[in-house]
Amino acid sequence: MHRFYAPGATAPATVLSAAETHHLARVLRLAAGAEVVVFDGDGHEWLGRVRTLTRAGATVNLVALRTPAVEPAVHVTLAIALLKGAELDEVIRDATMLGVGEIAPIVSAHIAVRDRSARDEARERWTRVAVASAKQCARAVVPRVRSVTTLEDVLSDLSFDERIVCVEPVRGDTRLRPISPHAPRRVLLSVGPEGGWSAPEIEFAIEHGACCLSLGPRVLRAVRAPTVALASLWTAWGWP
Amino acid sequence: MHRFYAPGATAPATVLSAAETHHLARVLRLAAGAEVVVFDGDGHEWLGRVRTLTRAGATVNLVALRTPAVEPAVHVTLAIALLKGAELDEVIRDATMLGVGEIAPIVSAHIAVRDRSARDEARERWTRVAVASAKQCARAVVPRVRSVTTLEDVLSDLSFDERIVCVEPVRGDTRLRPISPHAPRRVLLSVGPEGGWSAPEIEFAIEHGACCLSLGPRVLRAVRAPTVALASLWTAWGWP
Repeated sequence: MHRFYAPGATAPATVLSAAETHHLARVLRLAAGAEVVVFDGDGHEWLGRVRTLTRAGATVNLVALRTPAVEPAVHVTLAIALLKGAELDEVIRDATMLGVGEIAPIVSAHIAVRDRSARDEARERWTRVAVASAKQCARAVVPRVRSVTTLEDVLSDLSFDERIVCVEPVRGDTRLRPISPHAPRRVLLSVGPEGGWSAPEIEFAIEHGACCLSLGPRVLRAVRAPTVALASLWTAWGWP
Repeated sequence: MHRFYAPGATAPATVLSAAETHHLARVLRLAAGAEVVVFDGDGHEWLGRVRTLTRAGATVNLVALRTPAVEPAVHVTLAIALLKGAELDEVIRDATMLGVGEIAPIVSAHIAVRDRSARDEARERWTRVAVASAKQCARAVVPRVRSVTTLEDVLSDLSFDERIVCVEPVRGDTRLRPISPHAPRRVLLSVGPEGGWSAPEIEFAIEHGACCLSLGPRVLRAVRAPTVALASLWTAWGWP
């Protein structure tokens, strides 16, 4: 059944946004009476029925609460270096599908800083990507996208009980630690740009209690390393 | 150091193909004397030095054998349903980077059969994608891309000592088995198209000894399911 995102929705009915109404009426050509699923991005999900379609938006009756897809017991914050072009969109799409709780785009030493309005625009786009992915993967939670920040800033956050930094493959790397078989409560997973985090960045992370994770002896593309790392963590800690 | 693919290369020197010569001379603008890495796609890798650049191609002296990236102890054949557009290219790029030994594109019941010449063309393109990915991820082995085949055909191959079929998330699915903690020698990993394998296809796989693997409670995009499954297998069996 088609899924629609309605932040703040409460029974008995909700009015969909212009974008969601467009998707419902124009793209999918659904009409009044259609059965749909509505979720609020905060873990609530309803069986809904389209009541009216007007200029103000589609009004959907929230007929019954549904049990949403199970959320992971581990809250993962993915700290990901800004990548070129639309690659961060790809990362956010995959990370949402793989159950992260939060995404923190990171300005790394390798990347030029961009101006504030471009960043705000980018953040809105990334949130739209997370919403679209939540719709597609049948998740009722939309991960929060933070403002662009620094690796120092996220590492200093004391709420994490595990910090992981992905490193490029180096033969005989003595910094590596296996993934803890005991699932933490809140974890920070940080993945660098193409070419990886710089040596000082990794040193800084280790000083802040991070353990180094390597994902095999081959060089992973930066755009796909978070996907591989997340699949690896869930396998170690148990899906979801 | 830049990597070049030279199938059948043997010391003391090799002549690169037109495509590799173009990459070396036109794209990277390397000249005679440049140090490069040459690999044969079969697990051999050399430190090389460009001797001459002529119309016939770049001649590279193979100066010394190098130790290539470690190959997985488990030989994985990825059986992947044909996907729309260039999505299979994405799958092959990731699968190469994640160490598969062989890729078997599968005509599934959900996909229209294409004519033979289009298939041969596609197979050549997929092999080029595998080569490009091996260059990028610093792997000395290029996975073999099989001719398009059927799920029945790969499942009947007796050389596999483990067969895995990825299934879509269904609550309380009693068919699921955890990944065996003991790494097999040769494994078949089969991943369906968008919407997953059909019920008869999964039944058929189970009858042929396949175990069902689920990758969490969220619906994965077909184009990314193989990446997630491979990361999961290596985590269970140990990278690489």
